[in-house]
Amino acid sequence: MRWEERREVVLGVLALLFLGAYAWPILDPGLDPGWERACRLTQVVVWVAFGADFALRVAAAPARARWVRGHLLELALLVLPVLRPLRLLVLLTLLRAINRGGAVSLRGRVGVYVGAGSVLVGLVAALSVLEAERGAPGATITGFGDAVWWACTTMTTVGYGDTYPVTPLGRTIGVGLMVAGVALLGAVTATAAAWLVQAVAEEEAEEAAEEAAQEAAEEAAQVAAVGARDPGAELLREVRALRAEVAALRGRPDPGRDGNLQQ
Amino acid sequence: MRWEERREVVLGVLALLFLGAYAWPILDPGLDPGWERACRLTQVVVWVAFGADFALRVAAAPARARWVRGHLLELALLVLPVLRPLRLLVLLTLLRAINRGGAVSLRGRVGVYVGAGSVLVGLVAALSVLEAERGAPGATITGFGDAVWWACTTMTTVGYGDTYPVTPLGRTIGVGLMVAGVALLGAVTATAAAWLVQAVAEEEAEEAAEEAAQEAAEEAAQVAAVGARDPGAELLREVRALRAEVAALRGRPDPGRDGNLQQ
Amino acid sequence: MRWEERREVVLGVLALLFLGAYAWPILDPGLDPGWERACRLTQVVVWVAFGADFALRVAAAPARARWVRGHLLELALLVLPVLRPLRLLVLLTLLRAINRGGAVSLRGRVGVYVGAGSVLVGLVAALSVLEAERGAPGATITGFGDAVWWACTTMTTVGYGDTYPVTPLGRTIGVGLMVAGVALLGAVTATAAAWLVQAVAEEEAEEAAEEAAQEAAEEAAQVAAVGARDPGAELLREVRALRAEVAALRGRPDPGRDGNLQQ
Amino acid sequence: MRWEERREVVLGVLALLFLGAYAWPILDPGLDPGWERACRLTQVVVWVAFGADFALRVAAAPARARWVRGHLLELALLVLPVLRPLRLLVLLTLLRAINRGGAVSLRGRVGVYVGAGSVLVGLVAALSVLEAERGAPGATITGFGDAVWWACTTMTTVGYGDTYPVTPLGRTIGVGLMVAGVALLGAVTATAAAWLVQAVAEEEAEEAAEEAAQEAAEEAAQVAAVGARDPGAELLREVRALRAEVAALRGRPDPGRDGNLQQ
Repeated sequence: MRWEERREVVLGVLALLFLGAYAWPILDPGLDPGWERACRLTQVVVWVAFGADFALRVAAAPARARWVRGHLLELALLVLPVLRPLRLLVLLTLLRAINRGGAVSLRGRVGVYVGAGSVLVGLVAALSVLEAERGAPGATITGFGDAVWWACTTMTTVGYGDTYPVTPLGRTIGVGLMVAGVALLGAVTATAAAWLVQAVAEEEAEEAAEEAAQEAAEEAAQVAAVGARDPGAELLREVRALRAEVAALRGRPDPGRDGNLQQ
Repeated sequence: MRWEERREVVLGVLALLFLGAYAWPILDPGLDPGWERACRLTQVVVWVAFGADFALRVAAAPARARWVRGHLLELALLVLPVLRPLRLLVLLTLLRAINRGGAVSLRGRVGVYVGAGSVLVGLVAALSVLEAERGAPGATITGFGDAVWWACTTMTTVGYGDTYPVTPLGRTIGVGLMVAGVALLGAVTATAAAWLVQAVAEEEAEEAAEEAAQEAAEEAAQVAAVGARDPGAELLREVRALRAEVAALRGRPDPGRDGNLQQ
Repeated sequence: MRWEERREVVLGVLALLFLGAYAWPILDPGLDPGWERACRLTQVVVWVAFGADFALRVAAAPARARWVRGHLLELALLVLPVLRPLRLLVLLTLLRAINRGGAVSLRGRVGVYVGAGSVLVGLVAALSVLEAERGAPGATITGFGDAVWWACTTMTTVGYGDTYPVTPLGRTIGVGLMVAGVALLGAVTATAAAWLVQAVAEEEAEEAAEEAAQEAAEEAAQVAAVGARDPGAELLREVRALRAEVAALRGRPDPGRDGNLQQ
Repeated sequence: MRWEERREVVLGVLALLFLGAYAWPILDPGLDPGWERACRLTQVVVWVAFGADFALRVAAAPARARWVRGHLLELALLVLPVLRPLRLLVLLTLLRAINRGGAVSLRGRVGVYVGAGSVLVGLVAALSVLEAERGAPGATITGFGDAVWWACTTMTTVGYGDTYPVTPLGRTIGVGLMVAGVALLGAVTATAAAWLVQAVAEEEAEEAAEEAAQEAAEEAAQVAAVGARDPGAELLREVRALRAEVAALRGRPDPGRDGNLQQ
């Protein structure tokens, strides 16, 4: 466990390094060529580290072919240069470490992933689209502010149309971001719905429990009034109480109560 | 309770005062400087009152550090000048007072909060964006009507693009409003879903209850036909009826009924 | 019942008449003044008929003040001239008549209302916005085709921005349509969610029932092997079977089965 | 089964052929007239094949009139030339074949249909809108890239407004795509909600099961301490254990446990 945690922290730091080396030349177009080369080198170094991590895990897996098949997305992120910026998603694994710490509910965890994932995906899309669009004729996204603004209007599906990509690569990034936006909307709605469905169910269960408790109390009073010492009567009392419980569980008045107790 | 209610009413009135003092100079750009100064003074006074309320509650809390940690959002609204207009959200606490009065269902309360919260957030955003955009070169939001129209198109994620913020501050307000819009969509959907899921479940439960009641009646008729005086038979009758109930609860025909009663 | 149905049909026919008299002058701006006057007269006649229907129902209600309070929306549609076109929503009551005929599920009824309500609201909004916008300087909605197209882009929250209202009245109609669009999205999502949640639950219940049936069969075989004639043993068999059922209901293996049957 | 599968594969291949013959003249406006005629011929041939398939199935149906009434949509796709491109939806039946192979969960199947259906509908809409818009005055959709980009912005309800249809046919296609987009959003949200509702319920059931198991263990220990040889006591033990189970099922502490065991 300790080793695994250390590995995650190292990967997270490397991803942050990658983020810096990826973002700097995009944000500062007039960057000194020497620094630009340094950034590229950093990206290559992080990429090699990620590749080595992947190779080590393949080597350590008992069934290698199956392991690779289960990590195809990760492999694609590693091999396809166009998906390069998405390597930053490794930062989401840091969230796993955070979530492990506290005893968070499933809904809380989904919320954290949705929030952090949205910010990360939006940031990556803004950087990539800026790289793709800057300098294109007729581009409306010409600065980082524009790019972030575009990413926000796209993810929330508002889409004013004051900023939009015009290059094929930019539009491809845009389609990916729209899909992410639809998924984001779905996740937000689902989290809200899950909370509300559960809260409504709990409120109703509370009411039902109160009613059932009252009914059970009345039942117990009647049973006590009947009174009995012999074991057969005790059994009868037990079974009748049980039946009242089951009836309460079904949420309808015990049908046999009145009829059978008068005997 | 009485004291707490009075406090909420006072805060609500102060917030309305703040709303007036905040909105007037924005809505009337050619306001007399004397009145403008009066509005600023009113804002400061309300701010001081809110700060005093916060300080008093800190002082009254048993565990102060923990109390502050639980009210960080409130503290941020108080301290950060840029979040100033959001202080109006204190008006939502008035809703709490209203909700306390009637015995409203959870779904009803969510609906009231969603509706009133949407109107309040939209109004605040319209005022702030108008303040930020008015006079900016290339601005499309130049009057209060434009600002409200923009807030509506943004919160519902329609986003025609005839009006949109162009300044950094206006865009920041816009991002906040988009997030509110996504949350609004989620809440509306969730409320509808909770209602529908519950209504469908109730409709099915009714049908199941009718079937079970019929089955139980048939069962009771059979049991009555068998007849019996001795306590063992009575116990048997009780247990069989119970078993029929549990079977009905599981929603499948009682498996042992036919076989065991023929004996 | 018969009378009520006849009333609904008459109101529906009147609403269709109103639709024609409302739409014709809007769709054909160069309408002969005589015809235009006839249309206005028809609208007034239908309005008087609706008012008479409302008055009759008030008179027939046992608690009049309370009845009016429960029909405030209807009263507003009748009294406020700006809500005039929404009187067409009376056509939705025809759906109630249709739904009454077949035994439709709740979800089906919601679907019918959502579909027909969307079409009706969209049509009304398109007609009203066309009336409000036509002739306004800078208007982008200048024909019925544009108006319908605008209504569709607004209700689905797509909002391209090629057509949008520019007059205050047109924008007010637009805000109403956006709210309807959000509610539409919520209803569609909720219907889909209710279907899916239920279908998933049924699929799981089926699997659980199969497992439980298998378990119960094994249990029955064991019980049969034990065999017994005396009533005490019969009771034991009954209670054990019942316990297996409850255990199956809870979805976990019966804990006492193995231990108690070996005795 | 075998025959049905072969039929589906043949229809799928024909649909792919149709896709090619439909798409080629649209994508390459300067196509040689001979090739264009070949494409048209291919479309007619596929159409005849689909018609023959439909006729054969009508002939094979036991109740023909009822069968046709149940396949009205299919008939419309066959007869109405404007719905021609939607014949490609027959490709979705290939998914059925794929889904039949693996034991996929309902949610998984919904996901596959939503994903593949979205891509297919988007592709068909992009091709049709391109055919309708190309050459129209003021058109913003002039190439296949534009058309796909437009389809994506429409289905996700982003709607930047940089590309939008201007012809009546193009707008009709657009409305259909918007409705598909709303349904897509609903399906995505519903799938997410179903997953989350179920996961939350499972998490809670697990916690409840743990508590119940602990309670049952304590109960069993108490029962064992009481000890008993005679059948009456055994019966009592059974019924008490059962009652503890039912109480655990209702999720509240067994009310009669403490009182009855002390006797």
